[in-house]
Amino acid sequence: MTDDIGAFVPGLRVRLEGRAGGPLSGLTFAAKDLFDVAGVPTGGGNHDWPTGRPVPTRHAWAVQTLLDGGATLIGKTITDEVSLGILGENAFDGTPVNVRAPGRVPGGSSSGSAAAVAAGICDTALGTDTGGSVRVPASFCGLYGIRPTHGRLDLAGMLPQAPTSDTTGWFARDAETFAKVSSALLSEAIPTKLPDKLVVAVDTFGFADANVGAALQPMVKRLAALVGASREEIMAPQGLSVWARAQRTLQPHEAFNTFRAWLDAGNPRLAFSVARALVMGSMIAESDRVWANLMRQEARSRMAWLLKAGTILCMPTTPFPAPLRGQPLSVLDPLRDRITCLCAQGGLAGHPQVNIPGSTVDGLPVGLSIIGPRGSDATLVAVARALEKTA
Amino acid sequence: MTDDIGAFVPGLRVRLEGRAGGPLSGLTFAAKDLFDVAGVPTGGGNHDWPTGRPVPTRHAWAVQTLLDGGATLIGKTITDEVSLGILGENAFDGTPVNVRAPGRVPGGSSSGSAAAVAAGICDTALGTDTGGSVRVPASFCGLYGIRPTHGRLDLAGMLPQAPTSDTTGWFARDAETFAKVSSALLSEAIPTKLPDKLVVAVDTFGFADANVGAALQPMVKRLAALVGASREEIMAPQGLSVWARAQRTLQPHEAFNTFRAWLDAGNPRLAFSVARALVMGSMIAESDRVWANLMRQEARSRMAWLLKAGTILCMPTTPFPAPLRGQPLSVLDPLRDRITCLCAQGGLAGHPQVNIPGSTVDGLPVGLSIIGPRGSDATLVAVARALEKTA
Repeated sequence: MTDDIGAFVPGLRVRLEGRAGGPLSGLTFAAKDLFDVAGVPTGGGNHDWPTGRPVPTRHAWAVQTLLDGGATLIGKTITDEVSLGILGENAFDGTPVNVRAPGRVPGGSSSGSAAAVAAGICDTALGTDTGGSVRVPASFCGLYGIRPTHGRLDLAGMLPQAPTSDTTGWFARDAETFAKVSSALLSEAIPTKLPDKLVVAVDTFGFADANVGAALQPMVKRLAALVGASREEIMAPQGLSVWARAQRTLQPHEAFNTFRAWLDAGNPRLAFSVARALVMGSMIAESDRVWANLMRQEARSRMAWLLKAGTILCMPTTPFPAPLRGQPLSVLDPLRDRITCLCAQGGLAGHPQVNIPGSTVDGLPVGLSIIGPRGSDATLVAVARALEKTA
Repeated sequence: MTDDIGAFVPGLRVRLEGRAGGPLSGLTFAAKDLFDVAGVPTGGGNHDWPTGRPVPTRHAWAVQTLLDGGATLIGKTITDEVSLGILGENAFDGTPVNVRAPGRVPGGSSSGSAAAVAAGICDTALGTDTGGSVRVPASFCGLYGIRPTHGRLDLAGMLPQAPTSDTTGWFARDAETFAKVSSALLSEAIPTKLPDKLVVAVDTFGFADANVGAALQPMVKRLAALVGASREEIMAPQGLSVWARAQRTLQPHEAFNTFRAWLDAGNPRLAFSVARALVMGSMIAESDRVWANLMRQEARSRMAWLLKAGTILCMPTTPFPAPLRGQPLSVLDPLRDRITCLCAQGGLAGHPQVNIPGSTVDGLPVGLSIIGPRGSDATLVAVARALEKTA
């Protein structure tokens, strides 16, 4: 397999062997350059981030867990700057090649991790997902990818962005590897019992491009056959754009607070779009945040009510496949906004979500997401594995 | 003289001999990296600015004029990114050393030009002044510096920022060189007849740090003795902060319009403070600009009324000497705002202004400005030359 796709941070093809005899022995993994690896500066996707910071002396929890499980680290992968970006174009470290969609973005911010797994350079890779940063590249690169239940995993050694939404996620090309890695990171066996109720969020399918909705229908049918003893169609009561706006109010404000001391002391170089997001985050009115937090409470109670034990929901992960690389911001900004309409529920409500690959539009991957009750992460992985067998 | 002060853009110590036998023969000059030099990419102080732009095939008008006058170009100097900055700290090309105030900023955006002249590396240097970018480094580095009457010089080949305020200016260490270079660029002999009325803007002296106001008093007295057959003390009728706010409304909006296509197409890397200024510029309400434009009309009529033929006004160029390098934005932002309170009149009303060096506070240079009627540029230079002889 080629590794000349620009997925790794230059100079950071570090290799650390996993523990012999572990359940993940024989697997290789990469870590997004937001995760600490002892002895290696954490780059954060921005050349001014490491300045003046001590080199980590411990591995991040997720890195240590995979090493303990027996997987071998082969390097650190490119990320959008300080995880602020959803498309995977980084002006400092470059844009990894999406081998499944040549000429198109890999998706971000876990761009290099997704690109490396898609290209077969490693078996799995760690990413982070605050507003869609595992889900979107998983969809664009045709991979299994998980955003776990918010608050479930230990985020020690992971560069934060917006703590009330931040999660650690991971990718794999096949469901069996995905299950093995998930079991290690979730510290839980992948069950055999599947849910028995499927909720189809019909408005999200309508919101996606028409050909995306159509391309996903065969997977929805297989999913319904697999788990859908009961099937219900629902629509978001408040509108996808309303949830997106709430997330886009809360997340950038938190991100600005996370980075404000760095911005103030170092006046770092940032891509204009990244600086813009932070400036916007600094200008959000207290009154807007009050309403957005109330909206978040509603979103949480709505999702909890929809997703009772034994139920999963399905929706398109992204409204379209990967856009072309190198487009102007005025083209990309509206695309980003539409992505947020589908992804916002994750950051707002914190339910686990798995992207299942297998569909394409004009040869470009686009994924189906399944979402379950909080804590049902392993069950979602089980559904993904069972569904692959029906393909 | 050492040239190891980081005043030049790395790799741009280009040398072009001036025309033999011209009035500026024997003088050397540098050009801020916003001015085109044929065959050399114009860097603009930002590493993503030259990307995709053709290399200039002609010299900027000001460069050509100095070469025609006989001066020899010795290189291109560091500027704040796309001229957005008043302190002279550039995260891409570095911060030139201010030999007159070690450990302190040189002032910007014409930072390298001022630093190179102050260090004796060249005799004069071209800068640009939109909101203070010649006046401030002249004050901080102890140099003669001019912001000419707006609209007087040909700005061809100069990277614009906010066209209704943009000017080309220059620096020199001594008044005789300053007069020679000014005569060439103004295409006008420096007169011997001096003004006969001095207006002292007392509120500007009060606004400056107390020790700056005190340090400048001996120069004000010499100036009054030189030209002040009639002397009047005035105060700004609307308040310095009101004018500053109008300038800070109009200039960033224009700057955003100048750079928006570049930002959109290239999503360039910028220091956070520079991106922030552009984002703020993009968000200014039409209604705010309407009021600021009315304020500008008032400022113009006020300045024209004050500065009739034969009158000059004096004020501190900056409220304080050069601040320390490397301070956080939260320290620098209020300093920048205070500088704007003194500089805004230039961008709003477009009168010519000359910084006269000679005073210090705790050994750090701080300059006295003289301002005259529109078109009186050469008379201001004449005053500066005559005043030097009284020192």
